Amino acid sequence: MTKITGFDTYDVRFPTSRTLAGSDAMNPAPDYSAAYVVIRTDAPDPALAGHGFAFTIGPGNDVQLAAIRLLEPFLAGRDLDEVLADLGGLGRRLVSDSPLHWLGPSCGVVHMATGAVLNACWDLAARRAGQPLWLLLARMSPEELAGLVDFRYLADALTPDEAVELLERGAAGREDRIAALRRDGYPAYSTGPGWLGYSDQQLAALCAEAVADGFGQVKIKVGAALADDKRRCAIAREALGEEAGLAIDANQVWDVPTAIGWITELASFRPAWVEEPTAPFDILGTAAIRRGIRPVPVATGEHVANPVMFKQLLQAGALDIMQIDACRVAGVNENIANLLLAAKFGVPVCPHAGGVGLCEIVQHLSMFDYVALAGTTEGRQIEWIDHLHEHFAAPAVVTGGRYRAPGTPGASTEIRPESLAEFAYPSGPAWRGGKI
Amino acid sequence: MTKITGFDTYDVRFPTSRTLAGSDAMNPAPDYSAAYVVIRTDAPDPALAGHGFAFTIGPGNDVQLAAIRLLEPFLAGRDLDEVLADLGGLGRRLVSDSPLHWLGPSCGVVHMATGAVLNACWDLAARRAGQPLWLLLARMSPEELAGLVDFRYLADALTPDEAVELLERGAAGREDRIAALRRDGYPAYSTGPGWLGYSDQQLAALCAEAVADGFGQVKIKVGAALADDKRRCAIAREALGEEAGLAIDANQVWDVPTAIGWITELASFRPAWVEEPTAPFDILGTAAIRRGIRPVPVATGEHVANPVMFKQLLQAGALDIMQIDACRVAGVNENIANLLLAAKFGVPVCPHAGGVGLCEIVQHLSMFDYVALAGTTEGRQIEWIDHLHEHFAAPAVVTGGRYRAPGTPGASTEIRPESLAEFAYPSGPAWRGGKI
Repeated sequence: MTKITGFDTYDVRFPTSRTLAGSDAMNPAPDYSAAYVVIRTDAPDPALAGHGFAFTIGPGNDVQLAAIRLLEPFLAGRDLDEVLADLGGLGRRLVSDSPLHWLGPSCGVVHMATGAVLNACWDLAARRAGQPLWLLLARMSPEELAGLVDFRYLADALTPDEAVELLERGAAGREDRIAALRRDGYPAYSTGPGWLGYSDQQLAALCAEAVADGFGQVKIKVGAALADDKRRCAIAREALGEEAGLAIDANQVWDVPTAIGWITELASFRPAWVEEPTAPFDILGTAAIRRGIRPVPVATGEHVANPVMFKQLLQAGALDIMQIDACRVAGVNENIANLLLAAKFGVPVCPHAGGVGLCEIVQHLSMFDYVALAGTTEGRQIEWIDHLHEHFAAPAVVTGGRYRAPGTPGASTEIRPESLAEFAYPSGPAWRGGKI
Repeated sequence: MTKITGFDTYDVRFPTSRTLAGSDAMNPAPDYSAAYVVIRTDAPDPALAGHGFAFTIGPGNDVQLAAIRLLEPFLAGRDLDEVLADLGGLGRRLVSDSPLHWLGPSCGVVHMATGAVLNACWDLAARRAGQPLWLLLARMSPEELAGLVDFRYLADALTPDEAVELLERGAAGREDRIAALRRDGYPAYSTGPGWLGYSDQQLAALCAEAVADGFGQVKIKVGAALADDKRRCAIAREALGEEAGLAIDANQVWDVPTAIGWITELASFRPAWVEEPTAPFDILGTAAIRRGIRPVPVATGEHVANPVMFKQLLQAGALDIMQIDACRVAGVNENIANLLLAAKFGVPVCPHAGGVGLCEIVQHLSMFDYVALAGTTEGRQIEWIDHLHEHFAAPAVVTGGRYRAPGTPGASTEIRPESLAEFAYPSGPAWRGGKI
């Protein structure tokens, strides 16, 4: 019998504010960070461990880590096979645990901690199965997958029977799509060119480079100053040519009337979508903006805390594109629920990525979606930011504008030990001398 | 010049799970706790300090405290008068701070930490002014009060001009109401009788006692088992007589269809309201329940994280009664916004209280509402639970079913030093031998 022995936790911070990569209208100088957890077992093979993390932008990463440690008693000492055999039950137990719920509910630091721990469990499950996570999920039965979902507050939009039906329909042709995915990969778009802190010259050069690299879409940050946005959209549009998509991302800076006015001024640049036009928890506001800017599509989701919020965004007709984040919600479990809700409402999912390791883990969810649920990549693409991947043991690989299907067992969530040491905060070599 | 020197923080936990006071359908055995902060100054008078807290039910109170400490750099070393002169600016700065926002957004542990710190600042402001908080707020000008609100995501429902107009209208007759409040107090209702862990005999006796004590309404917990709820509602209704109100509280246990069915079964007991029939962040679900159970009124709010969520509950027609909580949102500032939204939509506010110190602080907000905004106590009452008040330096006082207007300067948030020592977790005498 293999036992879970406990958690190792690490405060890992990368000094990204030194270059302004990652700068946007809400986040002028983030230090991309991970509150990182390794679930250890007493297995003789040290690789039989689960890796997970919450992504933060620096300050408070220690609080995020404290929240992760709060969950250790739920797993330490338990039989590994028993835990892995019922990850749906574990997810429901963590999300509905009364003191944890009080500290949310179902949002914020404690909910993200639940996500880190559940994702680490899925990494462990996939390692134990000797498969990459996307394939492990794609070959589970519709009943097993539906069993991962907490339907407690979803029943008015999605029942367990409907979930099974969607997954049964999605399974048809699965093996062909596994082969296609391994051959062709999954479409990506690039956010690399568009940070607010970059100069016009950088923007133009990086847009042209993205097209040359095979990306069909680029995303740029907007929302700080309208005149700048018009100039930058024009520069991007010219550098991209007429074919490539141009998405714009406001990172929540507007209220409803401002969003409608501002986006109308940018509509002539034909945005592929406008992202986070207002507070992500303003469901009715987002719906009002969507009605006010037709036909510009609205995307949101990277800060949407749980499937009940996504349910409402869909019910209210607020979304053209759903942007799940692998680490904001309660892990793989809640993202299976999100993918099912999107399928039910016929809305494509284009995940949020970037950050620290978000590309690595979220690619598994889109690939599962393609293979076993949506059945297509039409209108779907995963965000790509070529940044910090070198710190991962099995980094995400994008070539020719497409994510390549991971083959390494696990969820691609393992950070290399050298990076854990170098970027340990505040004591690692990268932080000697403190925050610059 | 007086300087803010820093925060003292305390993990205070009361072993309430030993008696099952506080037990409900979601929280079977809570240990009522406070993540408590004292903002210290270098003033010669040690009483010139600000007291605030977040209320939790035990596990994770340490994480809540870590989140509070995260805010110390925003205040330590600053000039006290400068800070107190612009508490609106401080509130907006904390709520929109980019790394803090990332850890929410505007919800969960970090947002509650913001609430604890802002409330402590208001306690300090009221002490410095030599007034109880309700009176300090009630005598501020409409422009000053509107200046406390972050209108960023509210503009589609409430503008600064509308807020000023509501406050100007509310100010008429203010001095008469101050006198009336000092004389008559503010209506209370009692939740003491209704915990799920209590026996039928306890329930009946405590309901009869509440009526004898002058309470016009009692609230009981429901949602664990329908047959039990029917029996308990019948017992309560009989003990209360026909006059007194009987509110029922499900603490979020139902989904939409279950809530509608269950409440319909209890409608014959004429509930004054049904509270938290589903997830508090399920705005559209709560609205659907309200439509489905008419004319039973719906109340929610103690877990509603911020004014943008309340805005939507009001826009969606989900609420008959708004239940603000003094410590769940970002403190007095966000509750001024909540009271203004309620006034705009014509919905009465009946605050959540109980917990640790929630009665003490929230009474100030209702009294402000009566004196300077709503202008009436009609249809309004503050929850009362006669529990843990002895730990406060200036405890809330309820006699004859009414809260008595506090006269002590401050926000009534100070915990007595003896209690801080006795219930310090895990090292205080009350916890010797660990959690029982």
